[in-house]
This record gives sequence, C-alpha cells and structure tokens, in this order.
Amino acid sequence: MFRKQIKVLDCTIRDGGLINNHNFDHRFVREVYKAISTSGVDYMEMGYKNSKKLFSTEEYGLWKFCDDEEIKRVIEGIKSKTKISVMVDVGRVDIEEVKPASESPVDMIRVATYVKDIDKAIFMANHFAEKDYETTINIMAISRDQGAELEEALHQVEQESKIKALYIVDSFGALYQEPVERLIKLAKGILKTREVGFHGHNHQQLAFSNTIESIIHGANYLDATIYGIGRAAGNCPLELLIGFLKNPKFDLRPILDIISNELVPLRNKIEWGYIIPYAISGMMNEHPRAAMALRNSDKKENYREFYESLVNANLD
Amino acid sequence: MFRKQIKVLDCTIRDGGLINNHNFDHRFVREVYKAISTSGVDYMEMGYKNSKKLFSTEEYGLWKFCDDEEIKRVIEGIKSKTKISVMVDVGRVDIEEVKPASESPVDMIRVATYVKDIDKAIFMANHFAEKDYETTINIMAISRDQGAELEEALHQVEQESKIKALYIVDSFGALYQEPVERLIKLAKGILKTREVGFHGHNHQQLAFSNTIESIIHGANYLDATIYGIGRAAGNCPLELLIGFLKNPKFDLRPILDIISNELVPLRNKIEWGYIIPYAISGMMNEHPRAAMALRNSDKKENYREFYESLVNANLD
Repeated sequence: MFRKQIKVLDCTIRDGGLINNHNFDHRFVREVYKAISTSGVDYMEMGYKNSKKLFSTEEYGLWKFCDDEEIKRVIEGIKSKTKISVMVDVGRVDIEEVKPASESPVDMIRVATYVKDIDKAIFMANHFAEKDYETTINIMAISRDQGAELEEALHQVEQESKIKALYIVDSFGALYQEPVERLIKLAKGILKTREVGFHGHNHQQLAFSNTIESIIHGANYLDATIYGIGRAAGNCPLELLIGFLKNPKFDLRPILDIISNELVPLRNKIEWGYIIPYAISGMMNEHPRAAMALRNSDKKENYREFYESLVNANLD
Repeated sequence: MFRKQIKVLDCTIRDGGLINNHNFDHRFVREVYKAISTSGVDYMEMGYKNSKKLFSTEEYGLWKFCDDEEIKRVIEGIKSKTKISVMVDVGRVDIEEVKPASESPVDMIRVATYVKDIDKAIFMANHFAEKDYETTINIMAISRDQGAELEEALHQVEQESKIKALYIVDSFGALYQEPVERLIKLAKGILKTREVGFHGHNHQQLAFSNTIESIIHGANYLDATIYGIGRAAGNCPLELLIGFLKNPKFDLRPILDIISNELVPLRNKIEWGYIIPYAISGMMNEHPRAAMALRNSDKKENYREFYESLVNANLD
C-alpha cells in the first residue's frame, strides 16, 4: 500500500513511557531516535509536556515533561529528517510555559482529549498553532463515544481549529474493523480540509489490522511503536506497519536492529503485549486500569475471576 | 456478530502438535477436550491421521496418527456435544486403514492440500464421505496460489466433491484483509452449494482480524486454537474469536481457565506467538521453515541478518 500522503509517527517513548513512568534514559532515547531517523519514519514522539506544577519530577521521568533542553540532548549530532512531536493532555499543561516553535526542537504538538473536552482541546491546539507548531487533536476512548456528541465535536474541529490532523484513538483496544471503517469514514466526511489519523491499541491483537483498515478508508496519519511497546497490550508494531506500507522511503533494518538489541531485552524487564486480562478489557470495552492492577497482584493469572468481576460490575 | 450457521473448530492439539511432534499426553488432551466441550465449541481436531508405514511412532507422538482407540481414551466419560475432527495430508495416509464413521469416534475428516494436488484431495475426501464422515478440503499456502489454478480447483471442488466446506488456509500468515476479502468472495462465488472456511496464521498479528474479515464476507467455518498455540506464530486465538462472536451457545470461562492452568505454563516450555523472524516470513510471503530453524540456532535474535538473507534469496 503506497500513498504519498501517509505519515508514520513513532510513539515508542511516549506510549512506552506509560509503563515505566517515563523513565527511559538518554542513551535509550538516543538509540530509538537514531533508528527512527535512519528508517525514515516521519515523526517521533518523545513524551508528554506536562506541567511540573502538577506532577512530581521525583515520581516521573524526563519524558513526562519533555523539556526542550532534554530533547536537544537526545537529538544532538544525529543526522535526521524525522520531526519531533510531544503530546499534551487537556488540563495537565501550562500553555504559557511552551515557547514558540522557532525557539524549540519540537515540530508538532498533539492534544489528547475526550469528546467532552473538545472545546478546551481546540483552544489549546489553536494556541500552539499560533506559536507555529504543527498540531493535531487526538480523541481518546473513541469506542465509548461514537454517537452524536462525537459528530458535533468533529464539526467543531473542522470549523474552529487550525489542526493538521484529527486522530481516532482506540484507547481500550475495543474496536473491530467495521467500527474503524465507520469512524474513519465519519471523520473524513466531516473534516474535509484536514487529515485523519488512527492510533490503535493491541488488547485484542487488532492494532495493526485496524491501522490497515484506517488506511483503506483514507487515514494518512498513523501511530505505531517499535515491537508494539505501550500501555497494557501495547500499540501497532512499527515493524509490521513499515512492512505493509512498502514505501521506498522506509528502511526496516534499523528497526529490526533496535528490536534485537534493545526491545527484546527490555521486554524481559517490563510487560506489554498479548496478555489475557488486557484481551478481556478490550472485549468488554473497558479501560485497562483494572487489568493493569491485576497484573501487579498475586492473582495475575486468575483470568476467570477477573472476567466475572467485569461482567458483574456491568450488571450491577 | 451472531450468525447461526457459524461453526468454530478448535485445532489446539492438531496445530499445536506441529511444535512438539504431536507429543501431548492423554491428561492434557482430556483437559482441552473438557474445556472445549464445556465452552460449546462445535469441533475439536485431535491431530493428523498419518500412516504408521510412513512415520515412526518413536519419533512422533500419538496425535500424528490419531488411532481411534487413543481418541476414545481421551473422550471417555466426558459429556460433550463437540464433534471430533482429524486432518489428513494428501499422500501421507493409507485411506484403506480408516474405518467407516459408524465404527469410529471421529465425525469429520479434513483433507489438507496444495492447489496442485486438488485432484488427489477430492478423491480422498470423497472416499471418506462414502464412509459417512463429514469432510472438508483445506487449501494450504493460499497466499502463493491466488491465480487461475485456484479458480479451476474451486470449480472442481464444487462439481466433483462431496465436501461440506472448503477452507482458505493462510499458511504463511501473509494475507492482509483485502486479499482475504477477495479470496472469500471468490470461493463463495464458485462454491454455491458448500460452506467456506478460514484458517489463519498469526505471523503478522492478523489471524484474528483476517478471521473476522472472512466472517464479514460469508465464511462460516472458522479455525482457532486456545491462546493461539500453533506452528511458528500460531493461530487465531479461540478466546478472542469467542469474545467477538457473542453467540450465546459459547462460554468463554472454561477457555480462560485452561489458559491459566495449562497454556500459560506450556508457553514457558515451548515457543509460539509474536516473534520477529515469523513476522518477517509473513511479510515476505515465505514458509516459516527458515525462521523456525533460526529460532533453534544461536542466531535466534539476529533479525537483520535473517531479513537480508530472505531478501537476497529472492533477488538471486
């Protein structure tokens, strides 16, 4: 599948940071940046730009805050055409602290939001656009919000925002390919002057296939992570996506190297991937929070009890 | 997705047997049979019915041969509506050794074949049909055989065979959802009086989504294995398929129990699942043979070299 407009964004450090409190060291992040740059991937997302007034720098690592100086240290001296992205959550960033793009190594700021906070997200994204950043709005937990409010939010984004792309985010790994088709078509139909993106989660082993589905129906901004690292079951594996896209601008080999050298050893220390409680969360269209707690308990392999607890919670 | 005609076939023991020389003990196979029966799955496939003249009983376990007496030992005393299936390969079975269905615990015999051997497969399947077995023909390695010969084979099956269902088998885990759509539509268009089935392999994390894709386009016979066990990257995970189908006849809980109690411990002893050399095989539309050899060598994590060896082999 070759389409010139397609942009791939690697969020290894950002989504991977959700399972280690954003505690990747500079060496690791530099290795990822080198691999991403050499492989020709369009964007690399470094983490969240949260306010230090709201989160403790003792509790969280560097990539929860993404200071410009830390990003400069990572990318220094590495030849690259890859643009740098950071993510902000509605309500967790002090927008006045963010310098204009001309003074920052960051090229793009992505605003993560729920449908209900779309007004705030548009306000924030426009603020960053005025500081000359590329911007996107990423609508999270979309499997819970597929109704009239979503449609209204999409109309607002088209009319009021200056964003480049609107992302559909399947935070719960609950979507099958038919809902992905419906959502991408809906967004494409309303957002006539913007690009549409997709970010999948792999709870039911569907992150890659749903990304393909989004491509088939016109999404051009695609998120992935190396070896699928990310919260809970993780994300669409970058190596599979590059293999599928067959765009001559991409080179798979640097990604294979870093999986061999860094990600396989890392997977022995922290957990992500196909794990039954995450699969159950996806099937039940639930946040993986309860499953993540289970995996940190001594009942981590007690799948039936976990399943029944979710069934019963929904019946109560 | 509820459709009354859908039949799910568990091939945990059969496809799983490909990674342990069919050496599951009676206790394990009984536990699987209990779980499959309690969960309401329609068929359970026990293994291959190969001739002992061709394969050594010292080298291979019981489920390479599937003697009726061994199957009887497994199912004895367990209440079940699940039908029993065995698989035969063209050229590896002595058809005269197979008793009539009325004298056997086996309900269905599935004939695995390549397109080029379709005449032999039809002959064998008809022989078993005359002995009153349900029969299917499973066309393997379909990603290499999508052209005019496949169409001719499908016409022959429709005209000459007595089978119940024709399976599309993605042996190399190379298909994306668009080729699955095309193949299922092709088979449905030609096989007007038969059912169509799908058997996926998970090299690119697409076995489950491709199974959904096949359902969308009318496949009613679906293969899966518990926790996705199977050769190389394994198969479509039964637990995900049951979660998707939402048919009230299925109960997920016995499957969750056996994953907790048997499959998770087994996965620590034998390897299947998302492993990069298998993903590379899938991308390159290659048999996983070379990747399986790599995983048994001291270069098991040397992904770049493996990738380049396949690229170069294709260029030579």
